[in-house]
Amino acid sequence: MKKKLNIGMIGYGFMGRTHSNAFTKAPHFFDLPYEPVLKTVCARNAEKAAAFAAQWGYERFDTDWRKVVESPDIDVIDIASPNDTHHDIAIAAAAAGKIVLCEKPLGRNPAESEAMVAAVEKAGVPNTVWYNYRRTPAVTMAKKLIDEGRLGRIFHYRTVFLQDWTISPDLPQGGEGLWRLDSAVSGSGVTGDLLAHNIDTAMWLNGQISEVSALTETFIKTRKHSLTGEDQAVTIDDASLFLARFANGSLATFEATRYARGHKALYTFEINGEKASIKWDLHDLHRLEYFDYADESQLRGWKSIHITDGDHPYMSHWWVPGLQIGYEHTFVHQAADFMMGLGAGTPVAPTFREALATDYVVDAVLKSGKSRQWETPKTA
Amino acid sequence: MKKKLNIGMIGYGFMGRTHSNAFTKAPHFFDLPYEPVLKTVCARNAEKAAAFAAQWGYERFDTDWRKVVESPDIDVIDIASPNDTHHDIAIAAAAAGKIVLCEKPLGRNPAESEAMVAAVEKAGVPNTVWYNYRRTPAVTMAKKLIDEGRLGRIFHYRTVFLQDWTISPDLPQGGEGLWRLDSAVSGSGVTGDLLAHNIDTAMWLNGQISEVSALTETFIKTRKHSLTGEDQAVTIDDASLFLARFANGSLATFEATRYARGHKALYTFEINGEKASIKWDLHDLHRLEYFDYADESQLRGWKSIHITDGDHPYMSHWWVPGLQIGYEHTFVHQAADFMMGLGAGTPVAPTFREALATDYVVDAVLKSGKSRQWETPKTA
Amino acid sequence: MKKKLNIGMIGYGFMGRTHSNAFTKAPHFFDLPYEPVLKTVCARNAEKAAAFAAQWGYERFDTDWRKVVESPDIDVIDIASPNDTHHDIAIAAAAAGKIVLCEKPLGRNPAESEAMVAAVEKAGVPNTVWYNYRRTPAVTMAKKLIDEGRLGRIFHYRTVFLQDWTISPDLPQGGEGLWRLDSAVSGSGVTGDLLAHNIDTAMWLNGQISEVSALTETFIKTRKHSLTGEDQAVTIDDASLFLARFANGSLATFEATRYARGHKALYTFEINGEKASIKWDLHDLHRLEYFDYADESQLRGWKSIHITDGDHPYMSHWWVPGLQIGYEHTFVHQAADFMMGLGAGTPVAPTFREALATDYVVDAVLKSGKSRQWETPKTA
Amino acid sequence: MKKKLNIGMIGYGFMGRTHSNAFTKAPHFFDLPYEPVLKTVCARNAEKAAAFAAQWGYERFDTDWRKVVESPDIDVIDIASPNDTHHDIAIAAAAAGKIVLCEKPLGRNPAESEAMVAAVEKAGVPNTVWYNYRRTPAVTMAKKLIDEGRLGRIFHYRTVFLQDWTISPDLPQGGEGLWRLDSAVSGSGVTGDLLAHNIDTAMWLNGQISEVSALTETFIKTRKHSLTGEDQAVTIDDASLFLARFANGSLATFEATRYARGHKALYTFEINGEKASIKWDLHDLHRLEYFDYADESQLRGWKSIHITDGDHPYMSHWWVPGLQIGYEHTFVHQAADFMMGLGAGTPVAPTFREALATDYVVDAVLKSGKSRQWETPKTA
Repeated sequence: MKKKLNIGMIGYGFMGRTHSNAFTKAPHFFDLPYEPVLKTVCARNAEKAAAFAAQWGYERFDTDWRKVVESPDIDVIDIASPNDTHHDIAIAAAAAGKIVLCEKPLGRNPAESEAMVAAVEKAGVPNTVWYNYRRTPAVTMAKKLIDEGRLGRIFHYRTVFLQDWTISPDLPQGGEGLWRLDSAVSGSGVTGDLLAHNIDTAMWLNGQISEVSALTETFIKTRKHSLTGEDQAVTIDDASLFLARFANGSLATFEATRYARGHKALYTFEINGEKASIKWDLHDLHRLEYFDYADESQLRGWKSIHITDGDHPYMSHWWVPGLQIGYEHTFVHQAADFMMGLGAGTPVAPTFREALATDYVVDAVLKSGKSRQWETPKTA
Repeated sequence: MKKKLNIGMIGYGFMGRTHSNAFTKAPHFFDLPYEPVLKTVCARNAEKAAAFAAQWGYERFDTDWRKVVESPDIDVIDIASPNDTHHDIAIAAAAAGKIVLCEKPLGRNPAESEAMVAAVEKAGVPNTVWYNYRRTPAVTMAKKLIDEGRLGRIFHYRTVFLQDWTISPDLPQGGEGLWRLDSAVSGSGVTGDLLAHNIDTAMWLNGQISEVSALTETFIKTRKHSLTGEDQAVTIDDASLFLARFANGSLATFEATRYARGHKALYTFEINGEKASIKWDLHDLHRLEYFDYADESQLRGWKSIHITDGDHPYMSHWWVPGLQIGYEHTFVHQAADFMMGLGAGTPVAPTFREALATDYVVDAVLKSGKSRQWETPKTA
Repeated sequence: MKKKLNIGMIGYGFMGRTHSNAFTKAPHFFDLPYEPVLKTVCARNAEKAAAFAAQWGYERFDTDWRKVVESPDIDVIDIASPNDTHHDIAIAAAAAGKIVLCEKPLGRNPAESEAMVAAVEKAGVPNTVWYNYRRTPAVTMAKKLIDEGRLGRIFHYRTVFLQDWTISPDLPQGGEGLWRLDSAVSGSGVTGDLLAHNIDTAMWLNGQISEVSALTETFIKTRKHSLTGEDQAVTIDDASLFLARFANGSLATFEATRYARGHKALYTFEINGEKASIKWDLHDLHRLEYFDYADESQLRGWKSIHITDGDHPYMSHWWVPGLQIGYEHTFVHQAADFMMGLGAGTPVAPTFREALATDYVVDAVLKSGKSRQWETPKTA
Repeated sequence: MKKKLNIGMIGYGFMGRTHSNAFTKAPHFFDLPYEPVLKTVCARNAEKAAAFAAQWGYERFDTDWRKVVESPDIDVIDIASPNDTHHDIAIAAAAAGKIVLCEKPLGRNPAESEAMVAAVEKAGVPNTVWYNYRRTPAVTMAKKLIDEGRLGRIFHYRTVFLQDWTISPDLPQGGEGLWRLDSAVSGSGVTGDLLAHNIDTAMWLNGQISEVSALTETFIKTRKHSLTGEDQAVTIDDASLFLARFANGSLATFEATRYARGHKALYTFEINGEKASIKWDLHDLHRLEYFDYADESQLRGWKSIHITDGDHPYMSHWWVPGLQIGYEHTFVHQAADFMMGLGAGTPVAPTFREALATDYVVDAVLKSGKSRQWETPKTA
């Protein structure tokens, strides 16, 4: 019999679903040292918590996260609630000796994040942050190719995360489903919500970002608040663009916006190296585009590699070549990797500390947007 | 409390996994009138059956499908075993009054299929065949557009299913994982395995196929049999191409092969109507390409619609716009639709009878390949 | 001083323009043994002939092609007039000892074409037919790769030529600009106009076609004739599809239509070999898509080669890598190749005899469409 | 008889060829008020000048541009020589009352450019700068759509010009064919050579750029000089990236480099407006990608418009729908537009003054790269 791993899920929204699905599916497709058990889900609204528990097969539900954190039968606290709750829950969970998983970003600002890192490290509890895109098979494959030295010296990195769902001035801000527009809850706008993904992937693939010059903008200046019904100033960044220099000397452009008409969730990156280049696009997530200068001169071109074969990362666990998996599987992979790391006693990236490094870049970007100066992110 | 629906799964291979996953996931994402219960999985090899049951959470396992069919606690027999078992199991299950689900194709030949249809219809049991691709959101969307009359008179249909996994002459035939190369088990080669999908979708979208002229080929004439170790004649069709005329007067090319170097599972179709055209491709399964002649003249073009929005078929059940689902979800949708149809007391397409219509076309294609004449498929 | 080559152009329509442009441009980009001189252009309508001569710098114009053929100062008769004129002009030109260039197809039927071949061969005059697509750099590159054996044994060939300009039933037939819809002038519909290109390329790349089974259709049964103003039966094929077996054992689908809504001139082909595959598309004519099984397993994919480098066919004569040429350049290449062959005393493909081979396949396709039998094309 | 327009071409390199081709072809495809005459080509090397004159049909050649400028039989001075010659030739030509065409960029720096503008304006001579990409049919179409207000308020502009031809450290700098690497001749690296195109198009489409923050880099610090044979410091910018804010409030990223492995001449732009978005790519130059939010919700997508129809800009002058033109035609269009403007007595954009505006942005970018501050370009 496998050891049971009792999960206490905090939050039942978009991320509550992706995390619950991850723990449900992982054991069917991976040979894991643990059997995850959906013990409880916690939400302030009892009715919603109950419905979510029924839908996903949680054994019970709770309405006070403190109670979950203190429950002796809970092994893992998985934080899938809005950003303004991450700090308190993570610190309490660490203090209670729980394993802590946290949806990104860590805190709303570096101060919160630093406290969270300190808490898990002091408690010595396993921890990880759900930067799920690392575990898209094509992205993991990109990491492998880079680590093997196939790109050579890196010259350029360019990445965007483009959405268009907030263009209408009639969209309200704040409240359920709209807390991402309320900086008091979210910490920032697209910089923390979207660019944090680009930054996490970029530093994983290409190393530390050493300086940034940013341009941030709030296109719609006031919106009605969904809870108060009153027009209030919009305090998040609607768009965030920055130039960067990496520690390895390569140059980058980063851009995220929710005002790019025509794009739903267009997360892309391209890396140009001396010997080879790589491109990826979340809207067609299995394709890795690869250009290899070592190819015969007259036959050089961008290769569209459909990352669905058994020798591609994670894919031997799924179907047969050519058949796609989707967005949710990036979470399944992270859940599986996490449980395997737990079994082996090794940390599973990205840890809270690694996520802090991303938060420092987010902070430098926001600062530069205001200072109109180049800023140097702290290192974690 | 929802009524339980006890599943007896026959088979534990590729399709055993997709079906088990479908029944496991459907309740988390759809509001269903039943709670499916993975009661038992059946395989001749007890060790494999036990392992599969453990992996997927089946309550027990069996090694004799007759015992499963006769079990009073089983509501649904789901046939996911090789083609040569479909006939006997389906007929016995119908006779036992079970709901019968069957992986495609129905039988190995029209005689088997006709007997299966007769059995379920005589018994009056709900039945369906897993032609899963109908429930790819972009394919369902294509159906919707056609049903709304947006394409007008249809002139052309063209479709392929291209693979390349049997090109090596060193690949053996027969035995576990390779029964698709053994016509005694499979019934035929690519015509029944791949083209059956193209035909099912085509008749669903564009109506009855009225005549066909086919060209079939076995490129590699002998292969070692994996069980006997001896070289034996290859009796399946490696490639199958046909011209067709539909009852509505449109013309078509169909092609399937396992010798198209570079393609893993390239199932595509394109339909050209007087007013609009549609294209789809399994390797990028969320995209529906759509050309509308009613567009302003200078702005006419093929539109790449990323079928991931809440107003697209099935997608409100999943994540947020732009985020992909995959191959497995087509089975989840069929499982969900099946349970909803069951609750409503309405048949869920494709029924055994509809699948028989596809088998008749498969048969006409195989006949035409031999007769070198145009052949007219029977209608179901 | 280079020897002058005096051109007598017959026709001033679409093809009169592409040929005139070819002879005008070739000397600026290729080092040729001849200086082509636009001596005269011939059209029945004096006003139009005069205007065309002025536009293109012809030294004079004529209204009777017989006079041009008999002119002692003309070296080359270039036939760019409608199909029903090819036969008489070519035979007279050959008899007069002129070099003869002819727009495709050769004659309206094999009898005409055979007479034309006999004439030029009897006269011993250099001759060529403007199957221009062979000289698209990416297509020439495909030929090179195949000739080098890079694809290995060929299994599959699939090709289409899709247009949509005749869908409206209000489009008249016959007369200037619409003679392609009048089989008395054109010989056939899409089979001779479009599929002839697919067939010429296919036999150049993949050898003789040994048998065909076709499906032809006339979707709009009557159209007003633009000259008589009366409704008349449409006698051309609107769509033509065929299955083929090549002499090398490979299988093919061919399809041409003017009823594929959304496609202007979508000429594509794909070839699947044991070792590699190739794709090409006229709407993005510089790209050659190439899949090489010899690539490292995990990095296999379709490579998009932008055929614009100096080591790609013809491209060293044009601009710099990445910068495109267009449709017209395929004619410039043929004009240049023709003059270089003329200087070297070697025939320049495709000769009249090679074009006859294509006409035989066209004829077999049209026959099969009527006989509903497999037909074997004659070999030239 | 049309009035002759006698051209004196200065330079015989890459741009000497594109300009000569433009003047040769324009009269065959456009109905122009002038007959351009290739009167003389000028190059310091008499042998090369003679060969070029013979290749292109120039009536004579010269080796001293001053002589050409002073020739009474020359109407137009077309400057296609390296950047360090633009200033002196343009000023002398204007002083001599000649029409002046100049390859981009105008001067090597704003001081040179300002003097050139002053000279042509003082002399009152017609003038234009060859920012050819404006006249790519798809780009002209983009301008039309924007001018019609179809995009609404613009939020984002992003554009790159990526090449990879200078990655090898063994590539020398300076001398024939390599003067673009020598800042004494070129003025700057990719900022003036490539980004100038992006900037010209951007300001044409989206208005004045009001501020920039740039990051420039020289990856290879020393290269052998092809004339001296000695290692010398590289003084050009190898890569140039900048953030920008336009006067209309939209935000932008610009990037050019010659170190983007895999890209030959990838000039792309994308514009996101409130109502619609546009994308374009020089490697597939006929496609305009267009997303229109006014489309029916479930059918929204990026439309791939193949800009080759008669109702698309410039295309009625060429072939039939679906058939491509290429890079060279952008120059043909500019030559044709220029002669039509000359006939009508109206300036033809971009004039020297418009090109000066681009030079001011180039200068601000180079400054910002050094100052690490936001810089405000002067307006012309």
